[in-house]
Amino acid sequence: MQIDVITLFPSFFQTPLECGLMGKALNKGVATVNLINPRDFTTDKHHHVDDIPYGGGVGMVLKPEPIFAAVESLPILPPREVILLSPQGQTLNQNLLRELATNYQQLVLICGHYEGVDERVQHIVTREVSIGDFVLTCGEIPALTLINGVIRLLPGTVGKVESIYADSFEDGLLDYPHYTRPPVFRGLEVPPVLRSGNHKEIAKWRYQKQLEATEKKRPDLMAIYKQNKETK
Amino acid sequence: MQIDVITLFPSFFQTPLECGLMGKALNKGVATVNLINPRDFTTDKHHHVDDIPYGGGVGMVLKPEPIFAAVESLPILPPREVILLSPQGQTLNQNLLRELATNYQQLVLICGHYEGVDERVQHIVTREVSIGDFVLTCGEIPALTLINGVIRLLPGTVGKVESIYADSFEDGLLDYPHYTRPPVFRGLEVPPVLRSGNHKEIAKWRYQKQLEATEKKRPDLMAIYKQNKETK
Repeated sequence: MQIDVITLFPSFFQTPLECGLMGKALNKGVATVNLINPRDFTTDKHHHVDDIPYGGGVGMVLKPEPIFAAVESLPILPPREVILLSPQGQTLNQNLLRELATNYQQLVLICGHYEGVDERVQHIVTREVSIGDFVLTCGEIPALTLINGVIRLLPGTVGKVESIYADSFEDGLLDYPHYTRPPVFRGLEVPPVLRSGNHKEIAKWRYQKQLEATEKKRPDLMAIYKQNKETK
Repeated sequence: MQIDVITLFPSFFQTPLECGLMGKALNKGVATVNLINPRDFTTDKHHHVDDIPYGGGVGMVLKPEPIFAAVESLPILPPREVILLSPQGQTLNQNLLRELATNYQQLVLICGHYEGVDERVQHIVTREVSIGDFVLTCGEIPALTLINGVIRLLPGTVGKVESIYADSFEDGLLDYPHYTRPPVFRGLEVPPVLRSGNHKEIAKWRYQKQLEATEKKRPDLMAIYKQNKETK
């Protein structure tokens, strides 16, 4: 997969893309991430990428021309999706990550900034994505989130494919609690069932804990889970 | 505000914390971000921070001792919150960001990794936060999201305070479309009302667009907005 990121801050991505599992996956060539700066596509002497908003208001708006030019400079590897990261988009979830990881050869990510992006950019955008109902100073963090979540699902990133399916949200429930050594730490003991060697009992306990955690912390997810179970 | 990040990848944060508005805010001393590596608090020869899970299963689990030791090495600046970033947490939203930015002097952020964190870490955690219903390879990205959203709300980061209140979610609606020069780009025109100079009409148009966008893209937010208006 090729991921092209249109960003005013290419350097933002440098150290995050070198770290941990994501760094290893990129080194192995699981995906390629290209960073493109719209400032390199400005034609005025001062390389302006933003301007004041029509109709007044605080903050600056990203101009359309450098973004169009940056996107149009890229080769097209179909099927591709051109995604604008913005708080107005469709909320990212595991289903959307799976869809992006499975169905596309190229993802072009446009990082918004400042007060916003000129609305005409929507004409080259095929999808608008938000990572949640909160505001950040920039679209680089949402883009990094999407990149990480997609790369994690590509073949070759996670060693054992079971890891991916054992995680939260994949079965509609939150994850069960994890424990490792030591068996007792500061008087806090690992639940004896996990040390029993009885795999049937362990699986039962874990499923029970998933149900309890989801019911307690995320009644919204629990309601969907119950509904899906009934219709099966 | 002091933000302490417990992370196995301190280098992850280097370039993101230098960029844009967040970099400027940190340079001005709006907040301090400290990076603490639990690996520095291991006591075994090989500096192991993770181990296999009790009860079996794929992946490794972060051990409790290095995380406890890392958190306990920090000075306590009350009021403080110790936050574990995990998909099992309370979903981050603008209200939670505002609460964290307003009510605390110190935020300690624990970045989970691998398959999970030993459940006993919950005993030093005062709040568990998730950025959304998706899975990432690491807790560093959620931590960065939280840091950015909180720093944005601290006095001194955003030049004009109106910027903060004009954004999405602050009034329960999505943002209106923004436009800047040129007035016509590739045949796409800026809506004439925005160039009319009639401030009353501009405000009316923007509010109408907020309602339309929210109704179309986020009926869930629209329902809450209507309910709040009725009870007012």
